[in-house]
Amino acid sequence: MSSRYDQALGIKGEIAALKRERVISAAVDLFYERGYDNTTLDAVAEQLGVTKPFIYSHFGSKAELLAEICSRGINSSQAALDSVLVLPDSPTEKLALICARFVSAVLESQKHIAIFAREAKNLNDEDLKRISTQRRKFDRALTKLLDEGVAAGEFSIGDTHFAALAIQGMISWAYVWYRPDGRLSMTELSDQMAELVLRLVGTAPKS
Amino acid sequence: MSSRYDQALGIKGEIAALKRERVISAAVDLFYERGYDNTTLDAVAEQLGVTKPFIYSHFGSKAELLAEICSRGINSSQAALDSVLVLPDSPTEKLALICARFVSAVLESQKHIAIFAREAKNLNDEDLKRISTQRRKFDRALTKLLDEGVAAGEFSIGDTHFAALAIQGMISWAYVWYRPDGRLSMTELSDQMAELVLRLVGTAPKS
Repeated sequence: MSSRYDQALGIKGEIAALKRERVISAAVDLFYERGYDNTTLDAVAEQLGVTKPFIYSHFGSKAELLAEICSRGINSSQAALDSVLVLPDSPTEKLALICARFVSAVLESQKHIAIFAREAKNLNDEDLKRISTQRRKFDRALTKLLDEGVAAGEFSIGDTHFAALAIQGMISWAYVWYRPDGRLSMTELSDQMAELVLRLVGTAPKS
Repeated sequence: MSSRYDQALGIKGEIAALKRERVISAAVDLFYERGYDNTTLDAVAEQLGVTKPFIYSHFGSKAELLAEICSRGINSSQAALDSVLVLPDSPTEKLALICARFVSAVLESQKHIAIFAREAKNLNDEDLKRISTQRRKFDRALTKLLDEGVAAGEFSIGDTHFAALAIQGMISWAYVWYRPDGRLSMTELSDQMAELVLRLVGTAPKS
């Protein structure tokens, strides 16, 4: 059982994380609407009704805030992938589940991905390098799963790395066309995408 | 037979088109490297070794030049689609050919598409609206071909509009990862993409 001191620290940590998320969320809205260059940290502070030192207590600079936002899309996609790869399921089941969760990750990070596409040139070299490394890690993990599916006789793919890039494109591109008030719900969209991906990797079509 | 006067006019028109292309090409390089905001028309003129009035004789403003560049990706994709839709081939053959040509269009417009993704916010409302209309036209034409394939019993797709978006994503996303010095040639890449797309729409796999 945790002491009252530990509990207080826990609450403090949670509040700090919550505040940090509020800063990110306000910055996402402003960077998305006005662009990175046209948004000052003063404007972010004003949007939140806080002072600029409050922002600085969470992020050292505007560029650091941008790096956090630009990392969100790939980080949540990687988390979706990791959460499935540990399961004891077959490659086919894993791939279907990864697609569904990857779709959710993309749609929930829609603005973050748009900001990354627009503003990557404003990232520090180090941050850009880190994000590129993350993306290659995701590539490799998805390719490995496709290789496992081929080895298990479940998938029929000539070039698994190419197929991994095609799958990422199908799903990532949704950030361009998805509208929250659109014809398909997020669940329908995830299910349909998973079905198309299973076809693409050459599993037998559902009868 | 054309008169000498007509010939002179024809050459004049070709030279004007060539000069216009040179302006676009220089602007693409600069917008891509430095960003739209950080590129002046003076810099474009300097890059070409011409005067600013020379640029103005082809484009009324920097925004007009941006609109032309941002239209290139969708225009060349539409041209690829149109060139195939007139053929007497089956939906399966047409789709394979469209994919191959669409891949080429995307890869040849790689920087133009990147500039559109980054700088769309700098487009005039009218230009942005025109490009969005173009994109919807492409969507509809591709969806219609999928519908024809379903009606002909060649494709098996539940939601053809969704499949059209997935196909566009697979192919368009190549602008993110394609490197001219990469492992696959443009032809190999086009062929592989077409194969994956045919699987995705539920045609029988090659035996």
